[in-house]
Amino acid sequence: MASCFCGDTVDVCKAPAAAQGSKDALIASSDPRHPANLICSLCKLFYYNNWVTGTGGGISIKHPETGHIYIAPSGVQKEQLKPEHMFVMDPVSKGYLRTPELYKPSACTPLFMSCYTQRGAGAVIHTHSQHAVMCSLIFENEFRIANIEQIKAIPSGQKDPATGKDINLSFFDTLVIPIIDNTAHEEDLTDGLQEALQKYPGATAVIVRRHGIYVWGPTVDKAKVYNEAIDYLLEVACKMRQLGIPSDCGIGEEKKYLT
Amino acid sequence: MASCFCGDTVDVCKAPAAAQGSKDALIASSDPRHPANLICSLCKLFYYNNWVTGTGGGISIKHPETGHIYIAPSGVQKEQLKPEHMFVMDPVSKGYLRTPELYKPSACTPLFMSCYTQRGAGAVIHTHSQHAVMCSLIFENEFRIANIEQIKAIPSGQKDPATGKDINLSFFDTLVIPIIDNTAHEEDLTDGLQEALQKYPGATAVIVRRHGIYVWGPTVDKAKVYNEAIDYLLEVACKMRQLGIPSDCGIGEEKKYLT
Amino acid sequence: MASCFCGDTVDVCKAPAAAQGSKDALIASSDPRHPANLICSLCKLFYYNNWVTGTGGGISIKHPETGHIYIAPSGVQKEQLKPEHMFVMDPVSKGYLRTPELYKPSACTPLFMSCYTQRGAGAVIHTHSQHAVMCSLIFENEFRIANIEQIKAIPSGQKDPATGKDINLSFFDTLVIPIIDNTAHEEDLTDGLQEALQKYPGATAVIVRRHGIYVWGPTVDKAKVYNEAIDYLLEVACKMRQLGIPSDCGIGEEKKYLT
Amino acid sequence: MASCFCGDTVDVCKAPAAAQGSKDALIASSDPRHPANLICSLCKLFYYNNWVTGTGGGISIKHPETGHIYIAPSGVQKEQLKPEHMFVMDPVSKGYLRTPELYKPSACTPLFMSCYTQRGAGAVIHTHSQHAVMCSLIFENEFRIANIEQIKAIPSGQKDPATGKDINLSFFDTLVIPIIDNTAHEEDLTDGLQEALQKYPGATAVIVRRHGIYVWGPTVDKAKVYNEAIDYLLEVACKMRQLGIPSDCGIGEEKKYLT
Repeated sequence: MASCFCGDTVDVCKAPAAAQGSKDALIASSDPRHPANLICSLCKLFYYNNWVTGTGGGISIKHPETGHIYIAPSGVQKEQLKPEHMFVMDPVSKGYLRTPELYKPSACTPLFMSCYTQRGAGAVIHTHSQHAVMCSLIFENEFRIANIEQIKAIPSGQKDPATGKDINLSFFDTLVIPIIDNTAHEEDLTDGLQEALQKYPGATAVIVRRHGIYVWGPTVDKAKVYNEAIDYLLEVACKMRQLGIPSDCGIGEEKKYLT
Repeated sequence: MASCFCGDTVDVCKAPAAAQGSKDALIASSDPRHPANLICSLCKLFYYNNWVTGTGGGISIKHPETGHIYIAPSGVQKEQLKPEHMFVMDPVSKGYLRTPELYKPSACTPLFMSCYTQRGAGAVIHTHSQHAVMCSLIFENEFRIANIEQIKAIPSGQKDPATGKDINLSFFDTLVIPIIDNTAHEEDLTDGLQEALQKYPGATAVIVRRHGIYVWGPTVDKAKVYNEAIDYLLEVACKMRQLGIPSDCGIGEEKKYLT
Repeated sequence: MASCFCGDTVDVCKAPAAAQGSKDALIASSDPRHPANLICSLCKLFYYNNWVTGTGGGISIKHPETGHIYIAPSGVQKEQLKPEHMFVMDPVSKGYLRTPELYKPSACTPLFMSCYTQRGAGAVIHTHSQHAVMCSLIFENEFRIANIEQIKAIPSGQKDPATGKDINLSFFDTLVIPIIDNTAHEEDLTDGLQEALQKYPGATAVIVRRHGIYVWGPTVDKAKVYNEAIDYLLEVACKMRQLGIPSDCGIGEEKKYLT
Repeated sequence: MASCFCGDTVDVCKAPAAAQGSKDALIASSDPRHPANLICSLCKLFYYNNWVTGTGGGISIKHPETGHIYIAPSGVQKEQLKPEHMFVMDPVSKGYLRTPELYKPSACTPLFMSCYTQRGAGAVIHTHSQHAVMCSLIFENEFRIANIEQIKAIPSGQKDPATGKDINLSFFDTLVIPIIDNTAHEEDLTDGLQEALQKYPGATAVIVRRHGIYVWGPTVDKAKVYNEAIDYLLEVACKMRQLGIPSDCGIGEEKKYLT
């Protein structure tokens, strides 16, 4: 799967060639860390994780310097994205600075914007993770898992008063991710998402029942890490369920549930 | 798996060298999107998805300009296909314009042709997906799944009267894929497939019991997307079955089935 | 995983450089199909299939022209094999024509030789496939699976009297693979394997209980295809078992077993 | 996944360029086997095995000539490690010879040191393997598995009096891996680990409940092989549990447990 990065290198090399004209200065960069290139390499990685197959899912990254918001288009094969396919939005006017030919804006756009405005996110990842879908069938309105080391990769919502840095969950904490119901049209999820953002001020992710998950973070690297750690925990929760063990059961309690 | 694309690049580069003589103009192209090259890269991808191992499965693409029908040969290692291995058929005379040395035509050919003629397909993908095989053991004559976001990647069979474009299923719809029984010889599946095509005019796929699945679309990109989305849904259905949840159960009904 | 082939290309390129002196003419070739190179690329592929991790498994290929028998050494990391690591044996004298420094001959060698002498094999693949191990726990002395399309990739043991070619199993046939008990030392498996070869003259594979599987064929390509198809069928059998369906149950009988 | 090695090659090439100044002589090498390069390629491999996603896990290698201890930093994306990110510690003074900018030392450092000092390890691998986590929920204080061929890749703790070499477990042996309880802070695991090292003088691994596993060996190659073989066995044990078969049950006893 690292070959995503092979593939990605190819895209990056092509990008400048493919990006002509003034508008395309927004997406033409030889820096693999540029949002227009990073969206391509991350989507490849997500594709090979079975998170965004069949054109599912989406991603948006805010340029750390310019504040421009980069968004992958709707209904495209995510593993084949190229920088010139990107939408670029002005964070203030919410107008598009760049609109690729032939593509429609992502239906996730209003949800991405909610994470940017209500959470000050630096990036938002949306996948159709099967672990998220299965957990949304198993759990009612909250996904809960406790006492698993990987939880420590997820922020608690608290900040260190001294440094102002996020404080992550501890091993003995319970990770709670709200689950909202799906709607016919993705943009209609916005209300449910915004409610969840208000009700769970510490949450860094929202599961959409029978649909997938939205994960965000202050930077694209953190959003990627949170998404990986949460997906790992969703998978562990599914496996615990198969053994009859509640994913938030106390340490040492698990043996009582083993059949 | 993106390394499929590494590998593919190699094949593409080799292709012109490998393709000598007038007939081979049909398969010699440096364009990775040329059917002769695309069949190779897609088969690599499918191989690493465990869809076409052991020489299983097959694929055919109609050239969007010439209308020539490209078909991978029978009984070959799909991940090792090269452009010079392709059969090329004239869409009108149904005669072969190109026959590779040493290879037999695919036993899937009559089924591919049925999709081209009865459905105006632009490409047909046949895999031995284990999710399709398992669902064919679980379900009687129809695979059914409802209220999962990924369903929205699949066409409903309806067309937008204004644009003439396919209208996809909505989240609240039920995806129905007919399941036909397998036969001793693949070519004998043609009758069953053609019946299913008539009985399910909106279907874009047919599952063959204890065998695999055929998926088609108006373009190879759409056929690939439909195949990925359907395989995702077949996998989710198998996982729902493990939890005791019917894959077409109503939203909110799932908890009643959890044991 | 195709990146195996990236990696492999590297090995192949290195091979001539790495192979100095007269003896090494046996393993120095720029042809990726040369047994010394093919063993390396296949072992990479098998590694990423989880078949030969932890130095497990082994492989041997008979050179189609010279008849020399190439064998990967014992206890090495299979994904890191290089041509210069190969043992080369004379098929007549059974003496080693080439012995790599620092390496021990594979403990599988006598079993490989049994397949060469008793079956006229062109190559033998031994993996620690978990599907083979699990089936060896589920089944008594024979693995049996019926009425699955992938069976058609496996030879029946019969030959076409006209062409002399292997006749493969049909969809309605039952694939039977003998299961022999494991021994403390791999070389002691030889008796059990030879008995199985005599008792099952049509078999192209033998499962070793709690250990793995040996698969062979008249050519390395066929051995690879048989190994892939059999592993696919072992995996399907494990999944059928999870649903309560006997893997050799009749078509249409499966629904009776579904719980 | 071999594409890890593609990616790795890239890192290795970059390394010398990236490594400027005297201190960086510790990590600048064009040899892929140099600890600073090997940690990068192994972490890529582990990432694509789902062992170190979400910045989980860690690794340390002792340079075979200099004895310098190389340690990956804390909380980084393991698949993106570069040689210049490495901490280098003096084995005698335990002082850092090299401290990368912006990175924190791994919280695993005291645990790595325990393996170096109490076991004379040459390398230590720590993963968040889900198979280890699941087995830590299933088993009380010891993971036990018997009579599986892959056990033979694991050392018994005995040494051959003649050669002084490690003697591995035999097929009929039982592999026992101690399970210790997790703590709030990784460094606080040290006491539990040291106790386990004393109580299980033959152990080459310790499972940390609801957390992951530590595996070490006299060389990095052996540590890698032990880690692969143990993970394979943990996975097999989970699958045996699904069938109701105790992973340490006697040969031939398994059928009694099949439901």
